[in-house]
Amino acid sequence: MPIQSTGAKGIKGTITIKKKFEEGLDDLAGFSHIYLVYHFHKSEHYALKAKPFLDNSPRGVFSTRAPQRPNPIGISVVKLIGVNGNILEIENADILDGTPLIDIKPYIPDFDIHQVEKTGWITNKTGNIDSVKSDDRFK
Amino acid sequence: MPIQSTGAKGIKGTITIKKKFEEGLDDLAGFSHIYLVYHFHKSEHYALKAKPFLDNSPRGVFSTRAPQRPNPIGISVVKLIGVNGNILEIENADILDGTPLIDIKPYIPDFDIHQVEKTGWITNKTGNIDSVKSDDRFK
Repeated sequence: MPIQSTGAKGIKGTITIKKKFEEGLDDLAGFSHIYLVYHFHKSEHYALKAKPFLDNSPRGVFSTRAPQRPNPIGISVVKLIGVNGNILEIENADILDGTPLIDIKPYIPDFDIHQVEKTGWITNKTGNIDSVKSDDRFK
Repeated sequence: MPIQSTGAKGIKGTITIKKKFEEGLDDLAGFSHIYLVYHFHKSEHYALKAKPFLDNSPRGVFSTRAPQRPNPIGISVVKLIGVNGNILEIENADILDGTPLIDIKPYIPDFDIHQVEKTGWITNKTGNIDSVKSDDRFK
């Protein structure tokens, strides 16, 4: 599995929404990018310190995107290619096959793009994200 | 309540984390912006169509950030001012007092800033976000 959608460029995926929620997808196709909120269902326990894929030191779990969190919820921004009924076609999927989806939200630049001043331990560490893949450390 | 952190510039807030999770906050102070993932605890039911604060037409709920979602989970990016033990000082809080927090994640430009091509129904509608406040429509 790639780590983060940034490391999953071009990887296509499909999302199947329950039919009873299909009406809630109206107007979504107008957006090129969406948030997926999902359950890290393979995360079997949590730890307050995690060694991130992109670093060699254990870090406070809330300063990481690691899956073994007290509430194992993940968020990713992916590219929305199309909506066909209850099926979404997406790209840049950094998410395990079979992951239970909790929510979908539109990605809105005015709300979601922020000028940051500090990026803590990850500063200068995302350069090799295209080649780093996840392993079993977070099981 | 302001709608979205973009409409809550300068509004300060504090977050209290349970003492047993305090160690998980290590390294977080290095980041200037964080995601808050929280429960829309005042959302009493959901609807698949929502009339957003910034629009006059009902829209598919997954194309909005409205709280009355099938899984009532909200996400906001806020500015992190400081971490003191189990207390976080934040700014740009668009979140109701007393909201139960589910998770905290670092906001990482390489993962979270995306060049979008389309922003659907909200295109050109965020201009007056500073003056629009929420009302009771989503109870």
